Amino acid sequence: MVRDIAKCSSEELQEIREQLDREYAGYLAQNLKLDMSRGKPSGSQLDLTNGVLDKLDTYVTSDGMDARNYGGFDGIPEARRLFSDLLGIDYDRIIVGGNSSLNLMYDAVMRLYVFGTGGHTPWRKLETVRFLCPSPGYDRHFGICEDIGIEMITVPMTEEGPDMDLVEKLVAEDESIKGIWCVPLYSNPQGVCYSDRVVDRLAAMKTAAPDFRIFWDNAYGVHHIYEECRLKDIFRACEEHGNPDRVFYFFSTSKITFPGAGIALVATSVNNLKEVRRHMSAQTIGHDKLNQLRTVRYLKSAEGVKAHMRLMAEELRPKFDIVLDTLRRELGGTGLASWSEPKGGYFVSLDTLDHCAKETVALAKRAGVVLTGAGATFPYHRDPRDRNIRIAPTYPTCEELQKAMELLCVCVKLAGVNKLLSEKRS
Amino acid sequence: MVRDIAKCSSEELQEIREQLDREYAGYLAQNLKLDMSRGKPSGSQLDLTNGVLDKLDTYVTSDGMDARNYGGFDGIPEARRLFSDLLGIDYDRIIVGGNSSLNLMYDAVMRLYVFGTGGHTPWRKLETVRFLCPSPGYDRHFGICEDIGIEMITVPMTEEGPDMDLVEKLVAEDESIKGIWCVPLYSNPQGVCYSDRVVDRLAAMKTAAPDFRIFWDNAYGVHHIYEECRLKDIFRACEEHGNPDRVFYFFSTSKITFPGAGIALVATSVNNLKEVRRHMSAQTIGHDKLNQLRTVRYLKSAEGVKAHMRLMAEELRPKFDIVLDTLRRELGGTGLASWSEPKGGYFVSLDTLDHCAKETVALAKRAGVVLTGAGATFPYHRDPRDRNIRIAPTYPTCEELQKAMELLCVCVKLAGVNKLLSEKRS
Repeated sequence: MVRDIAKCSSEELQEIREQLDREYAGYLAQNLKLDMSRGKPSGSQLDLTNGVLDKLDTYVTSDGMDARNYGGFDGIPEARRLFSDLLGIDYDRIIVGGNSSLNLMYDAVMRLYVFGTGGHTPWRKLETVRFLCPSPGYDRHFGICEDIGIEMITVPMTEEGPDMDLVEKLVAEDESIKGIWCVPLYSNPQGVCYSDRVVDRLAAMKTAAPDFRIFWDNAYGVHHIYEECRLKDIFRACEEHGNPDRVFYFFSTSKITFPGAGIALVATSVNNLKEVRRHMSAQTIGHDKLNQLRTVRYLKSAEGVKAHMRLMAEELRPKFDIVLDTLRRELGGTGLASWSEPKGGYFVSLDTLDHCAKETVALAKRAGVVLTGAGATFPYHRDPRDRNIRIAPTYPTCEELQKAMELLCVCVKLAGVNKLLSEKRS
Repeated sequence: MVRDIAKCSSEELQEIREQLDREYAGYLAQNLKLDMSRGKPSGSQLDLTNGVLDKLDTYVTSDGMDARNYGGFDGIPEARRLFSDLLGIDYDRIIVGGNSSLNLMYDAVMRLYVFGTGGHTPWRKLETVRFLCPSPGYDRHFGICEDIGIEMITVPMTEEGPDMDLVEKLVAEDESIKGIWCVPLYSNPQGVCYSDRVVDRLAAMKTAAPDFRIFWDNAYGVHHIYEECRLKDIFRACEEHGNPDRVFYFFSTSKITFPGAGIALVATSVNNLKEVRRHMSAQTIGHDKLNQLRTVRYLKSAEGVKAHMRLMAEELRPKFDIVLDTLRRELGGTGLASWSEPKGGYFVSLDTLDHCAKETVALAKRAGVVLTGAGATFPYHRDPRDRNIRIAPTYPTCEELQKAMELLCVCVKLAGVNKLLSEKRS
């Protein structure tokens, strides 16, 4: 029977805590050892694309180039074509790079910082440069800002994307706000899919900075698990609203084939691409075309990717089921937590009572389960309410995950009850 | 019979020119079409390592990591070990990256520019930053400086490395000189091997800039063709002279396996590595470990690389023979040209009479043979004497190369005779 623990009396809470202490002690005795800190695929998920490891039976690209040699700066044509078909991006906007979309993002921000764009002052010459960071969000986006010294402004997320009222207000007022990080489909960690209206508002909004840029990291763009969310075409929307150069679009196969050895892309307007090419061609003669060929030969086509992602969904759905079922069963109605119910992606976002995330993560760690650090989903690792925990269900086996989730729920309750008790005392 | 054309009379020169005009017209009639502009391997050279394309029969590294997944930021242990053995660099100093050492160089310079090092002012905040560029040199090194806005100072090359008297004088006087580009073995384009004395002076010299750095691009470190040049250990020399943080060392398999899909490394002091890791880990989660594994599985060991490079020398020696024999036969004793006689590497450096390189390259181009642009081997593409041409013999077949070299020699003579004639006239 579900009990709204948040409404219990001190005596009831004391009783519940004794019960939870016993349960927690039981987990301690099990000597668990499990790392759920990162959004890593499991071995069996990776096995789904082991064909990528096969002998590459040709090194000639569709335009007759020897992929072993130098050349082909923009990426091989068949890779650009596949991504163009898959994502609905113009072929000519796409540069296919190496194994890391993060690297493409870092370098994109760095170029704007060092060189500027469109004749505007390079960001390095400005007193302050700020980015909007819809949060909870992806820690490595925030890490790029932190490394380069870009000030981060936290913007809350809603069910359909960033809080656009706030975003519009901030970018209109503050010329130092130069960018926003977006994971528009199955956002990390909530699994939020940006609504058409949010995409339109991002494309249309008036920005005080003429060189404001959207960093559109569509990392989970084809990672449907329960349902297929659709994403409005940000490039077209930006063009329609007279902001054709506003977007840098990123994508990769890191979570389609192999995280360590996928292929990534950056896509942007023709104007922006000219600048990207100018500097990137001083940085490299070209990316690994053999791995592009290898990846495309394995995935075959946009349809091939979609078929593969249906297999992947079969692999991941049981894990998401475990996470969501356990949360519902153990925490539903307790008043101690709320969580996202994503339709796809790689994560579930869990909110504890305020000021309980750090303690929850610490309790889990002491029992052998390493979660993503509390605070990691916010700029500067500072979750103002200390309540958000990112659950990454992909790496453990189903049995491990079941156990870890049960432990996690005990920890959430224990931290919550401790907090309630200490409030009653004070 | 060799004629010292440079000493001929006007009448003799006129006669020679008519003969050369006829020869050149003969080449025009042949409709040649050949690109010798870049140091690219030929298809048959690439075929030597097609085993890299084979099925990868494991994805587990020597330390038990799944190379398909995230992790392993420094590179897989067996790759670091192989390079450590091959180059005599401490294992712990090495980070193995992606397919491009140029990318590692660009990023290394960019980090110093943006973040600085060791608490010194980041270079971006200085009025002027200068690099020494031993020239003729590698155009892409100069391209990095040009892109980032680093002023380049040309330093002449000698038979044993950069003109060290000048280098020592400049770095001692000018605090804005922050770096020097070096290709210490079989330099691009002359094939010069730095002597022990030059390495020692580079390591020991007093620099006005406390954050002066040597960019040590050992691109041809194992590319022996006629003889095996040895290179003094720059890291040890720098340590002995109290400058342990002076060097960033770069290497890659781009010209061992595949230019488009090799693996590259950066090695530096522990202090520098800390800074590299801090920023690079914001830039990427890790490089392509599967390609590292693939490359190491194919090359096996340092000994395996050396054995492969002996095969490669067999492939390249006939091409270098053609270049050098043709230069000797056609231009030896004419007084119209001089050239390097490298023992290894990828290039031969040719000097025409002053102010004849551009015309020579243009003449060759008109006859269908594209050479590296005249001037490319100097900062800002400005060869002060307009005389240097980089010959890249690796890409054409032997027959093509023989024809191209004969044409080139005709063009050198034609440009030289034209110049001598116009001097006599004025």
